Amino acid sequence: MAEKKTKINTYERIVEAALQLFNQEAERNISTNHIAAFLGISPGNLYYYFHNKDEIIMELYKRYRRDLTQFLQSSKPPQTAVEVKDFIMTVYEIMWQYRFLFSDVTALLARNSELQMEHEKFTINEVAPTIEQSLQYLVDQNLVKMDKIDLHVFSINFWLVVKHWFAFDKSIHNNQLDKNSKSRGTYQLFGMLRPYVVEKLSEDYDKVMAELTPTKLA
Amino acid sequence: MAEKKTKINTYERIVEAALQLFNQEAERNISTNHIAAFLGISPGNLYYYFHNKDEIIMELYKRYRRDLTQFLQSSKPPQTAVEVKDFIMTVYEIMWQYRFLFSDVTALLARNSELQMEHEKFTINEVAPTIEQSLQYLVDQNLVKMDKIDLHVFSINFWLVVKHWFAFDKSIHNNQLDKNSKSRGTYQLFGMLRPYVVEKLSEDYDKVMAELTPTKLA
Repeated sequence: MAEKKTKINTYERIVEAALQLFNQEAERNISTNHIAAFLGISPGNLYYYFHNKDEIIMELYKRYRRDLTQFLQSSKPPQTAVEVKDFIMTVYEIMWQYRFLFSDVTALLARNSELQMEHEKFTINEVAPTIEQSLQYLVDQNLVKMDKIDLHVFSINFWLVVKHWFAFDKSIHNNQLDKNSKSRGTYQLFGMLRPYVVEKLSEDYDKVMAELTPTKLA
Repeated sequence: MAEKKTKINTYERIVEAALQLFNQEAERNISTNHIAAFLGISPGNLYYYFHNKDEIIMELYKRYRRDLTQFLQSSKPPQTAVEVKDFIMTVYEIMWQYRFLFSDVTALLARNSELQMEHEKFTINEVAPTIEQSLQYLVDQNLVKMDKIDLHVFSINFWLVVKHWFAFDKSIHNNQLDKNSKSRGTYQLFGMLRPYVVEKLSEDYDKVMAELTPTKLA
């Protein structure tokens, strides 16, 4: 019993340390040896739980996906401009916890075919349909005006911007991510939805948008 | 004189062979030795022109950028729905010629800091302002309705979708790019502009959009 508890603890400690180090240092600069050293355990002990770094990444990817799915399935659909903002902010907040996955997402996917397959399935089966559902709800509540074509196009564009936001934001800010990245990303998606917002909501919507951070380019 | 001509020819042949092979096989599977073998020249001969593969990639990146800038600067701003479609299609067409750069863009940029710097500068100094200008023209012509906020948000979102389109499209089509990728990408951007199109243009706009290819997800 005590032994089982230690095993679970070590497993958890490895996963949590890896997440912390990947987020801090960029995943490609961190090896399993770094993680073991950080925890003060032997590489052999780490190897007992994970055969290589990609197995740890896969576990972290699954946790990100679990957290995002839980949020998407349990959240009440937004009904006001503030709730739309909070909805988008929470998506970025969850991604922020696992931000190493997104600051180099294409590189990671290219290297790890299992992760790539999982990621595709997740996008196609869960993310895109959930975004469409949330939008449909806003349409049904007469908060935004969108037809089937808009819904379909928007949910894909929305996902592309979300997925690549941190990498883009980093590239135009001296290769550093900071917490404002989330606010800038929310601004972009809020802006993407803006032309569909019905008139009675639009004043309120622009007030909320003004509290977010625009991206300065030149 | 004859010698100089040969040098130019070999240089050109290397660049063109590299482009062909990178597009066909995925850049990470092609080494400078593959390129030399493909041309029937010695690795030492190739090395006389390029010290490593990243130098060839940089040359190809500069050509892509030159082609895109030439198009953006010389093209007449679109005035009808068909012209908007042709404009977007041509952007994708140019990217298609250099598609290896975009099927793995983040990985490439992460590996090559010179390329990353060039790419940032290009986005900030040339691409985003040009997209804003073209949109401003459509606004001035009363073809689309956008305020300053819309223009700014749209030009960044537009670029994020363009830049990552081929990688996304590939990931949901059994990891293969085909020529319809361009039409699907144009559909997405056409759809992104759709809510801003003024009413007198909208029927025409939807007709043109119906000729493009939507992305099927599930």
